[in-house]
Amino acid sequence: MNDAARNRAIDAPVVVEVGLGDRGYDILIGPGLLDRAGEEIAQRLPGTRAAIVTDENVATAHLATLQAGLDRGGVASTIITLPPGEKTKSFAHLQDVVDGILAARLERRDSVVALGGGVVGDLAGFAAGIVRRGMNFVQMPTSLLAQVDSSVGGKTGINSPRGKNLVGVFHQPKLVLADTDVLDTLPLREFRAGYAEVAKYGLIDRPDFFVWLEKNWRDVFAGGAARIEAIAQSCRAKADVVARDEFELGDRALLNLGHTFGHALEGAVQYDGARLVHGEGVAIGMALAHRFSARMNLASPDDAARVEAHLQAVGLPWRMADIPGELPGAEALLDFITQDKKVSRGTLTFILTHGVGQAFVAKDVPASEVLAFLKESHPA
Amino acid sequence: MNDAARNRAIDAPVVVEVGLGDRGYDILIGPGLLDRAGEEIAQRLPGTRAAIVTDENVATAHLATLQAGLDRGGVASTIITLPPGEKTKSFAHLQDVVDGILAARLERRDSVVALGGGVVGDLAGFAAGIVRRGMNFVQMPTSLLAQVDSSVGGKTGINSPRGKNLVGVFHQPKLVLADTDVLDTLPLREFRAGYAEVAKYGLIDRPDFFVWLEKNWRDVFAGGAARIEAIAQSCRAKADVVARDEFELGDRALLNLGHTFGHALEGAVQYDGARLVHGEGVAIGMALAHRFSARMNLASPDDAARVEAHLQAVGLPWRMADIPGELPGAEALLDFITQDKKVSRGTLTFILTHGVGQAFVAKDVPASEVLAFLKESHPA
Repeated sequence: MNDAARNRAIDAPVVVEVGLGDRGYDILIGPGLLDRAGEEIAQRLPGTRAAIVTDENVATAHLATLQAGLDRGGVASTIITLPPGEKTKSFAHLQDVVDGILAARLERRDSVVALGGGVVGDLAGFAAGIVRRGMNFVQMPTSLLAQVDSSVGGKTGINSPRGKNLVGVFHQPKLVLADTDVLDTLPLREFRAGYAEVAKYGLIDRPDFFVWLEKNWRDVFAGGAARIEAIAQSCRAKADVVARDEFELGDRALLNLGHTFGHALEGAVQYDGARLVHGEGVAIGMALAHRFSARMNLASPDDAARVEAHLQAVGLPWRMADIPGELPGAEALLDFITQDKKVSRGTLTFILTHGVGQAFVAKDVPASEVLAFLKESHPA
Repeated sequence: MNDAARNRAIDAPVVVEVGLGDRGYDILIGPGLLDRAGEEIAQRLPGTRAAIVTDENVATAHLATLQAGLDRGGVASTIITLPPGEKTKSFAHLQDVVDGILAARLERRDSVVALGGGVVGDLAGFAAGIVRRGMNFVQMPTSLLAQVDSSVGGKTGINSPRGKNLVGVFHQPKLVLADTDVLDTLPLREFRAGYAEVAKYGLIDRPDFFVWLEKNWRDVFAGGAARIEAIAQSCRAKADVVARDEFELGDRALLNLGHTFGHALEGAVQYDGARLVHGEGVAIGMALAHRFSARMNLASPDDAARVEAHLQAVGLPWRMADIPGELPGAEALLDFITQDKKVSRGTLTFILTHGVGQAFVAKDVPASEVLAFLKESHPA
């Protein structure tokens, strides 16, 4: 094997197939995919043009590489750059992106390419879903969180003044290119926050994966083959859940493990990312969900302790006391929970667990039990 | 049979099933459906709440009846009223409707009810398609055009400054209630314009239906059983095409018979409804499509003459000379055609015909032939 052939073999991405029938698609995971984006897109999609949607920070780091990669594959691209941050997920920016795509005279079979994290992916995917009633969409997630979560499953959307992600569509990508090289440029705190969602897949229904993470998390953080494996396992796990319940009528709610408590905490700090980013909220939320399940005699306290220990080992926050600054009281936190949009008709629905890898959808959880638990868990 | 039972039997709506698998739904066609809307919705849909989206004109005529009808069925309703007219199909009004639905705290299983013509249906359907990534949607079309065309098939959307209907989603309704009583309040010109789309279904692939219309059009205009039959046949015809090609990748383009010439003429009069409304443009467009097909030796001139004669008999315009005021020249009309979004990659795609009921998708139609034909057909 000569050097070029060996490099090609080493670089060959892991492929995860998302089985959604005629809406199915491949997720490619590995190094060098920005470079090869044009080739991969040209092989799979009919259009010869693309609109790249990105944000100012990602553009500085990666846009030139991607544009050159698209050029090499014969895909002409136009650029739509957005300000970074959650506030970009608005009607005004949606309209900007839609207009940018139409101004470039792209057709249905051309592609909208999202280069960025969850915000860019959610907004660009929504625009791709509504221009000409649905264009081809390619995700190029640049954060660990986006590679293992928001780029899989077809949820797109923007925020409303009345709540997050209240407006959007299900629009599956035609292709996801998760270039693992770009993760090397992430700040450690952001990588860790994304890791919380990786661990989540083990906790939902893959106990063996959680055992593997307990042993190999240092290698996942270091990069290389273990990181690619962790991302691929996460995408497979999410793809399996999504294939069972594409439109979130049932099982897909399992993906919200840790998110009900997590969203409440994000709301409680008024989405101040200096205090708590989404993945950190999910980490604390997962620890709380396990501890609450133990309190309800659904799971063993040993399982809760095991989850807490792993989150602590990787350096993630795992209890409310780990959030800097003061938190609202237990009653106020419960209010944040009951305003959560996953609350259906006044009953409290939680993702609880019978143990590591045994999460389930629990309906009609008594609010009084939740309140008592929040009081016990509260640092104040 | 007592009087009440007889009335019920007479009033029983015709049901057309739209066969789209798990996105399939029923179209109910008949008198008194505004009155019975609550009952019909409560029987079929889980939610107990609805947002009625309507326009000021339709609200004056029909809103009180519908609200009372919903109340009787136990469906609580909130009202979102829009200004009438095509300009309402904008991002700004979309955002208003979305916010109105969220303000009423409706959930995914509650319903958005569109009470109005195509504008209201397209906008409300789009909003229903994106709030919480898709809510239940009920169409209550109040114009003949909406009953036979825009309420069937799931196309929703708004206009962009760059073109009509460029932004939207496919979102199938869960139920269509076409109350034929409301058609009695339509101005004759508007009813006639809707009738052009009724005739279109005969011309596409139902020659027997066209023969029936040639014999029975006076009864269709008069109301009663013939009108209900014509609407039901039209909905069946469109539902068949949509079931074959839900996302307009092929055959569904047949529904554009008459629309390429028609849209060009609408553009040429700058969408001035005093000179030409959409259905009238379609009528002239259908006559031109048949005459052009004859000129290309695809169909017999007798078929073109037969179509022209029928449109003339019902009082529809059928040639460019029937449009009041001056028209731009043939070259300018061709420009309007080639800007049409159905033009793919510079080639001209037309719906042409081999005769009455034998329409087909013609690709690569030479622009020079179209131009020569437009010159011959031009009144100037």
